[in-house]
Amino acid sequence: MRVGVLTGGGDCPGLNAVIRGVVRKGTQEYGYEFVGFRDGWRGPLEGDTVRLDIQAVRGILPRGGTILGSSRTNPFKQNDGVRRIRETLAKEEVEALIAIGGEDTLGVAARLFEEHGIPCVGVPKTIDNDLSATDYTFGFDTAVGVATEAIDRLHTTAESHMRVLVVEVMGRHAGWIALHSGLAGGANVILIPEQRFDIEQVCRWIESRFKVRYAPIVVVAEGAMPKDGQMVLKDDSTDSFGHVRLSGVGEWLAKEIESRTGKEARTTVLGHTQRGGTPSAFDRWLATRFGLHAIDAVRDGDFGKMVALRGTEIVRVPIAEATARLKTVDPALYAEAGVFFG
Amino acid sequence: MRVGVLTGGGDCPGLNAVIRGVVRKGTQEYGYEFVGFRDGWRGPLEGDTVRLDIQAVRGILPRGGTILGSSRTNPFKQNDGVRRIRETLAKEEVEALIAIGGEDTLGVAARLFEEHGIPCVGVPKTIDNDLSATDYTFGFDTAVGVATEAIDRLHTTAESHMRVLVVEVMGRHAGWIALHSGLAGGANVILIPEQRFDIEQVCRWIESRFKVRYAPIVVVAEGAMPKDGQMVLKDDSTDSFGHVRLSGVGEWLAKEIESRTGKEARTTVLGHTQRGGTPSAFDRWLATRFGLHAIDAVRDGDFGKMVALRGTEIVRVPIAEATARLKTVDPALYAEAGVFFG
Amino acid sequence: MRVGVLTGGGDCPGLNAVIRGVVRKGTQEYGYEFVGFRDGWRGPLEGDTVRLDIQAVRGILPRGGTILGSSRTNPFKQNDGVRRIRETLAKEEVEALIAIGGEDTLGVAARLFEEHGIPCVGVPKTIDNDLSATDYTFGFDTAVGVATEAIDRLHTTAESHMRVLVVEVMGRHAGWIALHSGLAGGANVILIPEQRFDIEQVCRWIESRFKVRYAPIVVVAEGAMPKDGQMVLKDDSTDSFGHVRLSGVGEWLAKEIESRTGKEARTTVLGHTQRGGTPSAFDRWLATRFGLHAIDAVRDGDFGKMVALRGTEIVRVPIAEATARLKTVDPALYAEAGVFFG
Amino acid sequence: MRVGVLTGGGDCPGLNAVIRGVVRKGTQEYGYEFVGFRDGWRGPLEGDTVRLDIQAVRGILPRGGTILGSSRTNPFKQNDGVRRIRETLAKEEVEALIAIGGEDTLGVAARLFEEHGIPCVGVPKTIDNDLSATDYTFGFDTAVGVATEAIDRLHTTAESHMRVLVVEVMGRHAGWIALHSGLAGGANVILIPEQRFDIEQVCRWIESRFKVRYAPIVVVAEGAMPKDGQMVLKDDSTDSFGHVRLSGVGEWLAKEIESRTGKEARTTVLGHTQRGGTPSAFDRWLATRFGLHAIDAVRDGDFGKMVALRGTEIVRVPIAEATARLKTVDPALYAEAGVFFG
Repeated sequence: MRVGVLTGGGDCPGLNAVIRGVVRKGTQEYGYEFVGFRDGWRGPLEGDTVRLDIQAVRGILPRGGTILGSSRTNPFKQNDGVRRIRETLAKEEVEALIAIGGEDTLGVAARLFEEHGIPCVGVPKTIDNDLSATDYTFGFDTAVGVATEAIDRLHTTAESHMRVLVVEVMGRHAGWIALHSGLAGGANVILIPEQRFDIEQVCRWIESRFKVRYAPIVVVAEGAMPKDGQMVLKDDSTDSFGHVRLSGVGEWLAKEIESRTGKEARTTVLGHTQRGGTPSAFDRWLATRFGLHAIDAVRDGDFGKMVALRGTEIVRVPIAEATARLKTVDPALYAEAGVFFG
Repeated sequence: MRVGVLTGGGDCPGLNAVIRGVVRKGTQEYGYEFVGFRDGWRGPLEGDTVRLDIQAVRGILPRGGTILGSSRTNPFKQNDGVRRIRETLAKEEVEALIAIGGEDTLGVAARLFEEHGIPCVGVPKTIDNDLSATDYTFGFDTAVGVATEAIDRLHTTAESHMRVLVVEVMGRHAGWIALHSGLAGGANVILIPEQRFDIEQVCRWIESRFKVRYAPIVVVAEGAMPKDGQMVLKDDSTDSFGHVRLSGVGEWLAKEIESRTGKEARTTVLGHTQRGGTPSAFDRWLATRFGLHAIDAVRDGDFGKMVALRGTEIVRVPIAEATARLKTVDPALYAEAGVFFG
Repeated sequence: MRVGVLTGGGDCPGLNAVIRGVVRKGTQEYGYEFVGFRDGWRGPLEGDTVRLDIQAVRGILPRGGTILGSSRTNPFKQNDGVRRIRETLAKEEVEALIAIGGEDTLGVAARLFEEHGIPCVGVPKTIDNDLSATDYTFGFDTAVGVATEAIDRLHTTAESHMRVLVVEVMGRHAGWIALHSGLAGGANVILIPEQRFDIEQVCRWIESRFKVRYAPIVVVAEGAMPKDGQMVLKDDSTDSFGHVRLSGVGEWLAKEIESRTGKEARTTVLGHTQRGGTPSAFDRWLATRFGLHAIDAVRDGDFGKMVALRGTEIVRVPIAEATARLKTVDPALYAEAGVFFG
Repeated sequence: MRVGVLTGGGDCPGLNAVIRGVVRKGTQEYGYEFVGFRDGWRGPLEGDTVRLDIQAVRGILPRGGTILGSSRTNPFKQNDGVRRIRETLAKEEVEALIAIGGEDTLGVAARLFEEHGIPCVGVPKTIDNDLSATDYTFGFDTAVGVATEAIDRLHTTAESHMRVLVVEVMGRHAGWIALHSGLAGGANVILIPEQRFDIEQVCRWIESRFKVRYAPIVVVAEGAMPKDGQMVLKDDSTDSFGHVRLSGVGEWLAKEIESRTGKEARTTVLGHTQRGGTPSAFDRWLATRFGLHAIDAVRDGDFGKMVALRGTEIVRVPIAEATARLKTVDPALYAEAGVFFG
């Protein structure tokens, strides 16, 4: 049997660990052969393949990014996309596909299986950890680690100069990275997209922190927004993928805080450093196990499914169900963190 | 209300984060006061206390170790231990106790509550992750991270010199650290206490690795043992705590491998570096949440319970039940890792 | 003898290590007592002091920032500043001052000594490494390490998405951090303040990198500028210290590159993460030795001098001479790095 | 022109960075071609070569170890060694050799040039930093960083349990790693091979540390020795390279300290983790510059020379002179650190 593998969407530490898990177990235990498709769904659409055998996956476990490349190409938005994919699979004699990606990539896999009978297995990937069917996705722990280390470093500058330091982390629709790194880093304010913040309350927390002679750290998710009427976005142009760029909440906060409290404030935008580089041990372990279980699903002929983490177990769930709803931060969980604000 | 806090057993990254969580929430939300007891159960036995207020817990989140000190003192092995604890609690006007520790420390808490009605809440701590009632304990992720980073470093030496490198990690009775760091680090052999290993099989894995021109890394838990008759321990003296020192499996392995395969082998014993230093982001998050939920249990008068992680939720379980059975590595999980051996 | 110590200017990893070195050696070997002045020159101006003995410096070696606080207060710009400093020194019975700081802080120390006979010894501090009298200043190695780790992480994202990633690092007037981290991180373009860059040349380098199927990393010092007429700064407002904020070269570059090459480009601004947090081993060693030698200069009555690193030796040089000229990147050294561009 | 490159002796972070620097500059600026020889002097002896062009050196900058492999083969101890090397060079049309290695590897290069006229350029490599002609060698900073991070972690365990922790670091003949990491890590005792230690004095330092309620860290170089009559080595067998294994000073110390002071003591042997893995930013910068300057020496026909660091400059010195004398820790420098003992 020949199995195709592709990675789609934004990159994420652990993608290579999944690929390695799939190929090692598939080759050694089941005798499968593998075809790597380049750049997400562009690969099967255009017949662009990469060699994918035991030798190709040696040494990739600790490496960030993906040896297969990635893109956001959607075959359902392409002329004749499904037919072209079928042709590539036929030509390459590929009998099953493992798609590693986020909502978009897995959404395509679900439709290819359900509407067109193409045998797909999904592996969930979102650095934002906002997929409802799984406790965690790989890449998230690495991102939280990078953000926490940055917050650790910023504390000393904040204290030495009695300044406010604002850290903008990833999270367009869900505040998981902000919440976890803010708690782990000892932030004094954490702002998430799930709950509009009141800039006046933020300033009160900041002032109460200064009163005990400590300088505050504010962690803000890139998608967090102030209450209606409190913010005018400086830049809402769209990027080349058609996504709105909501850049600016971090810088906006620093300016507002300076003008409202009279304290100096500075912003650090962590950006892509959160999603690149070597995965944390947790993410390597999770991604490796996702890979091992994905190829087991292929062997079982259990298509249309996605692997997921529940507690310490890897389970399988229908892809369609998994991508149906965004997993956002529960208000009670956010309230729990509130004891550390101010 | 005044609440006592103590930390017992071996140190573990995250202890300070628990203490901070307890004190911050207890003080700010419930108006409690706190008494720190020094060096585990020695503190309430001898009336040795530490100031424990908001100021005392500032800045301790990222610090390893415990500001309260630790010991393995067991009041049930002391003359009149329970009465002396009662007296200290009465004198300090302490109405509830939070005990942070492993099997031994929590076992005392369970007996104090069940046999003597002393209101205790437990927070589980074991760097080995071998407590059955919780998915993870804090400190474990940090230890796995330290071990994985060491394995990453050792790969390059192994490859450059075509040597076997043996890494001995913690885990006297359970192989969790070995299994997770071995998977995350890309080890070629992982040996755990749960399953006696066959040194001949180990050497076959090593030789098959050399055949593809790669040099092997062997990760071995300190408690792993070869099959009957294969090993003579070089040192089985007891340490000052009365535990048998099973040191030597790493060095023993290197010598056996050298003599059986003719390949050079070297051992690194990671030792205490695995349990010291700043906690990982995951461990800070888990320990902080354990602290917040432990003080909630106190407020609810829900004594004799221990906080535990299930999936992403913090729950409460009876201490006695939690410490009844060691959580060891499941044979199926160990077998899953076997695809990477050799 | 009582000796005063102060830290001025922007914070820098290693300040606490200097303070510890001064106090440990001064107390233990020479029997001196110490007075810490709070927030740079503000301390002696306003008589604001901090306890500074062996106990106060315990555990501060690995901590970033400064336990003395810092400011940019200049006594020569204050009414009657010198007289007020004299009064504080007399009142505190301080017979010598150790000033740890950059050009401004040390310039004050030089004038206090030369014009007013106040016995000062200087310890150089600039994270930018732009002081001519010393091979390196502490903090620089830490900053380069933080920037290099970020570049390592960004490589994987650049490759996976075939994007240009721009990293803006510190360096308003000197490109040392950009040059060292760019070389260490394997950047494909390094831009420094010492040499105006040609955006067209930058784009040619980027395109040649893409031709071999690799994605480029551009490291740019915050003070780097394009050739006349190529850039319009988006923001040249002044900050609360009166310094012009030249923010924007990183973002400007990404936009120019996108519009000129048609490739996606993203910017990461590392900001204050470069100057906070625990110092590298090199910086702890250098800062500690600076401290030990500064107190030796006090003991020798060798005032008006600053400690400096030459090769592996610590020497003393006149403060005035040391701060006279900025140490910028030599054109030949920059040219040496050019082999890696493109 | 074709240039040969080889790496000999123990591995060291930065070897790949040297190779990359040589090949990038040699190819792009001088139009040279390169031949990699495998496993040190074994390569030219046996004609075992590796492809070495721009493509082969892509991505190797951050990788530890050496893509060329290494060995301790000495052609002067081989039958007809020099003639065989000449034949390989002639066959491969190699007109110059760059040898990257320590005393042994460079000693061979010096003799090949001086006695046989074979045009060699040397690049010094010793993780122990014990080469007299250069301020630093690459790999040393990485090793010090790894050791310092370990010491940081051990402090918390030492404090929490009031134990003595002994850290054994590399350094058979020179104590540079022990001295630098001990100073950077805040060790309370540092023991180096250059000066025999008095175990009674060590125990006095340890006891004085406990008196102020702090727990001591002892950093000991593997080659450190107690005064005559104080130590009986437990194991002085020779390894497969014929070197005497002086293992045991760390464990010996812990046992002596326990029995003499009654305090618990534990040992961590850092071993090969110090010499593997990704090089620090400083080492990447130094190794890269060594590579760039080595190929310049080839272009200048300046053979029999070795590149070296003096302050911030790279210079050339005769290989023979450079390897003549071991650079050991100066007694005055060691005494300087003594203020932190106890």
